[in-house]
Amino acid sequence: MLLRDLQLKFGGECLGEVTRPLMGVGTIERATESEITFLANPKYRAALAVTLAGAVILSEKECDATTKPRLIVSNPYAYFARVAQLFSPSISFAPGVHASAVVSATARVAASASIAEFVSIGDDVVIGENVRVGAGSVIGNNVAIGNGTHLIARVTVYEHCRIGARNLIHAGVVIGADGFGFAPDFNQGHGQWQKIPQTGRVLIGDDVEIGANTTIDRGAMDDTVIGNDVKLDNQIQVGHNCVIGDHTVISGCVGIAGSTKIGKRVMIGGKAGIVGHLTISDDVVISAMTLVTKSIFKAGTYTSGTPLMPHREWLKNAVHLRRLDLMADKIKFGSNKIEEGE
Amino acid sequence: MLLRDLQLKFGGECLGEVTRPLMGVGTIERATESEITFLANPKYRAALAVTLAGAVILSEKECDATTKPRLIVSNPYAYFARVAQLFSPSISFAPGVHASAVVSATARVAASASIAEFVSIGDDVVIGENVRVGAGSVIGNNVAIGNGTHLIARVTVYEHCRIGARNLIHAGVVIGADGFGFAPDFNQGHGQWQKIPQTGRVLIGDDVEIGANTTIDRGAMDDTVIGNDVKLDNQIQVGHNCVIGDHTVISGCVGIAGSTKIGKRVMIGGKAGIVGHLTISDDVVISAMTLVTKSIFKAGTYTSGTPLMPHREWLKNAVHLRRLDLMADKIKFGSNKIEEGE
Amino acid sequence: MLLRDLQLKFGGECLGEVTRPLMGVGTIERATESEITFLANPKYRAALAVTLAGAVILSEKECDATTKPRLIVSNPYAYFARVAQLFSPSISFAPGVHASAVVSATARVAASASIAEFVSIGDDVVIGENVRVGAGSVIGNNVAIGNGTHLIARVTVYEHCRIGARNLIHAGVVIGADGFGFAPDFNQGHGQWQKIPQTGRVLIGDDVEIGANTTIDRGAMDDTVIGNDVKLDNQIQVGHNCVIGDHTVISGCVGIAGSTKIGKRVMIGGKAGIVGHLTISDDVVISAMTLVTKSIFKAGTYTSGTPLMPHREWLKNAVHLRRLDLMADKIKFGSNKIEEGE
Repeated sequence: MLLRDLQLKFGGECLGEVTRPLMGVGTIERATESEITFLANPKYRAALAVTLAGAVILSEKECDATTKPRLIVSNPYAYFARVAQLFSPSISFAPGVHASAVVSATARVAASASIAEFVSIGDDVVIGENVRVGAGSVIGNNVAIGNGTHLIARVTVYEHCRIGARNLIHAGVVIGADGFGFAPDFNQGHGQWQKIPQTGRVLIGDDVEIGANTTIDRGAMDDTVIGNDVKLDNQIQVGHNCVIGDHTVISGCVGIAGSTKIGKRVMIGGKAGIVGHLTISDDVVISAMTLVTKSIFKAGTYTSGTPLMPHREWLKNAVHLRRLDLMADKIKFGSNKIEEGE
Repeated sequence: MLLRDLQLKFGGECLGEVTRPLMGVGTIERATESEITFLANPKYRAALAVTLAGAVILSEKECDATTKPRLIVSNPYAYFARVAQLFSPSISFAPGVHASAVVSATARVAASASIAEFVSIGDDVVIGENVRVGAGSVIGNNVAIGNGTHLIARVTVYEHCRIGARNLIHAGVVIGADGFGFAPDFNQGHGQWQKIPQTGRVLIGDDVEIGANTTIDRGAMDDTVIGNDVKLDNQIQVGHNCVIGDHTVISGCVGIAGSTKIGKRVMIGGKAGIVGHLTISDDVVISAMTLVTKSIFKAGTYTSGTPLMPHREWLKNAVHLRRLDLMADKIKFGSNKIEEGE
Repeated sequence: MLLRDLQLKFGGECLGEVTRPLMGVGTIERATESEITFLANPKYRAALAVTLAGAVILSEKECDATTKPRLIVSNPYAYFARVAQLFSPSISFAPGVHASAVVSATARVAASASIAEFVSIGDDVVIGENVRVGAGSVIGNNVAIGNGTHLIARVTVYEHCRIGARNLIHAGVVIGADGFGFAPDFNQGHGQWQKIPQTGRVLIGDDVEIGANTTIDRGAMDDTVIGNDVKLDNQIQVGHNCVIGDHTVISGCVGIAGSTKIGKRVMIGGKAGIVGHLTISDDVVISAMTLVTKSIFKAGTYTSGTPLMPHREWLKNAVHLRRLDLMADKIKFGSNKIEEGE
């Protein structure tokens, strides 16, 4: 692959040795002479000056940051992603059903699909073209999986759920477990919780990625819905009846309680929590470990939490959080006195 | 099923067309003419006015909120749960052991139990009547599982653990992994952590539900104990030697460190954390994402954390959290001065 | 086993009946006459006075806390751990590959290794001596697992990852799933996220323990690295390209975002979060549920968050967090006025 070949494939302007041969991609710090790297953040200009990379992808604004063979493009990071994808094609699997898999006689599995060892596929399941169901996955009755979707390994999909095309679903993911719904049924100390049967489904769009051990609960009566091009990191919990809009990106360990509706292109930082029955507008950004307790109707960045301190300092300061109201009263009293005195 | 049939089965007072035929349950917003819905929260009265539902379950106080055929009951939500359960009976499984399962010769599996494909069952395991062990589950040596319990799929139960009757345990749950116990054994920079062997068990009561990918560690020397009618949502972590009282309900992503004792009917909000070696009394409520660092001996609701703000506003305010102690000093100084001046 | 045998094996000074026969270990509260316990924390002296334990391990300073047969040692807790290990030897498994396992013809599995039922082992995998791969585990192509490592059950290791010797990896762990890396590629409302192929590996040292359902992502281009003697509790998330130093201990439910470097002997409390691209020095301690947003270059304990309050009290106080900046202004104004007035 020559530098010029990338330009022909993905566009952009080529500067320097256009026949530079390239074998792969690398970070600015570690790329070798046969690899191409990129500059998206100006703070890496210094690192670029000493990179060993054979070629660089960068924006017009930064095009003088190196004299190496380079591609000038409008979005260097996305361009780099495309080049990296080119050098790292997704693995293809031999079509067919492994001898150890247990597939219901009423399931319809496309001839091009690949079903790995120890996979269990229930009644009336529909598996699309070029789907890969990895080892140890369990697919419940009446599930549908769209073309080109890849379940890596040990994925569980409960009955009736629908997964779109070109999804990438990582190991340990559980789709369609019961939502958490119980009615208190106690009377003078007796009784117990009554389960609300969770009869909705999970509906997942196209081009979704779901990280390892993430769980998405089925709806209570209506469905839980994940839009197109949604990217979920590892160990995220999505409660029943949530709706997540297209292109929304959620980092690891986020928890979203039931019936919350999240808009499009929302970005949620790691370990954030969102309580139930809220609405989050399009283009909202939630900071890491923030707790969202109210609906957000305006795009922008939102945060809760407190800054990190050395523990001793924290102890001295945090004690006053229990008496903030008192402090506010004293300030008000003092301000009034001062005004009176003037 | 007629409205009158529900009344005969579950009690309550029937108003209107008692022979109304019903096919299922639905939410106020989406129920159809052949479905019954419920009103438990007065703020849905307006929605009730326009519901298409064929019948409604509500309390005496709200009985004039609709003129539709209705059931007047003391606890509409719990009543609705029972009706929904009636319309959504749990799936039954053909008894027997799937040909692919590997069951130790010394395990005792009830004839009515159903063991799915790719299940591994260790030595001396006891599986009760009507138990379902779902695909890909791993049951260690000497485990006992009570009558009517259902492990959905890919559940791991480590050796010696005991699970009661009528549990519902979702995919990916791990019961009885080692607790986290290591003794520091370093000397002038050498050495390493010494593992404390985790030789206790997990004991789980009856009527417990455990959500997807939740983990409950075995005790270090004594046992970890989960009471009856405890409901655990997804991705909860319960540390070694914890004791959780009957009817306690814990939302998703909660973490409970080792040796903490939690009372009965406690409710813990999503993403809350409880440090180790604490006691939490009966009927305590913990808010979402709250960190509990001290024992709580009095029923009531407890909270930590800070409110959500637009990030710019947060930046302006949060900076002062590092100097709260200084602010408190200044307030005290000011107050004294003002008093002196008077 | 006599008390004297322990002394001969592990050292220390023996007081009292050195031929005391011992069958196991126990806690101060529950140990029986045939068990040995330990005192590491002086606050348990009172409990020691009434323990039924047959013998006690304690430090020289506490050696008068009991008159029972006892071992005086420099580090009672670590000594106790060794004694407990002696009484609780790890289970050994019959070597060989279970008939149901699917092992690639190009994999090299040591003769002493034990491969359990429903295990899938990919091409060119290398499994060392005395390794145990538990039921339902999935080992991707070209993985290497060092001598004596034990994967309990249902562990997934993605292709190319390397696991050292004597690891203990609990059920549900996922090693080597894709890191979370996407380039935004939107233009006037069109387009979608471009995936950055995750082509790095996970490299894990020796003597590492990894808790149930923990996930460690593979590097984007470089590797994710876990040092020797690192102990990870359950449900931890380690992002791509993180580096975790030797002997570091991380409690349950911690999330570490990508490219963060953590030093040696760091201790991280449960549910803490660390954002990406940070450096945490050796010997740092992070409190439970703390969010680390900046690098920490100095050993010590660090904390964020707010103290627990009864909810009513919290409501009264927390409202002022939105106006701290205003309060600070008023204090400044008041202080100035008071100074002027003097």
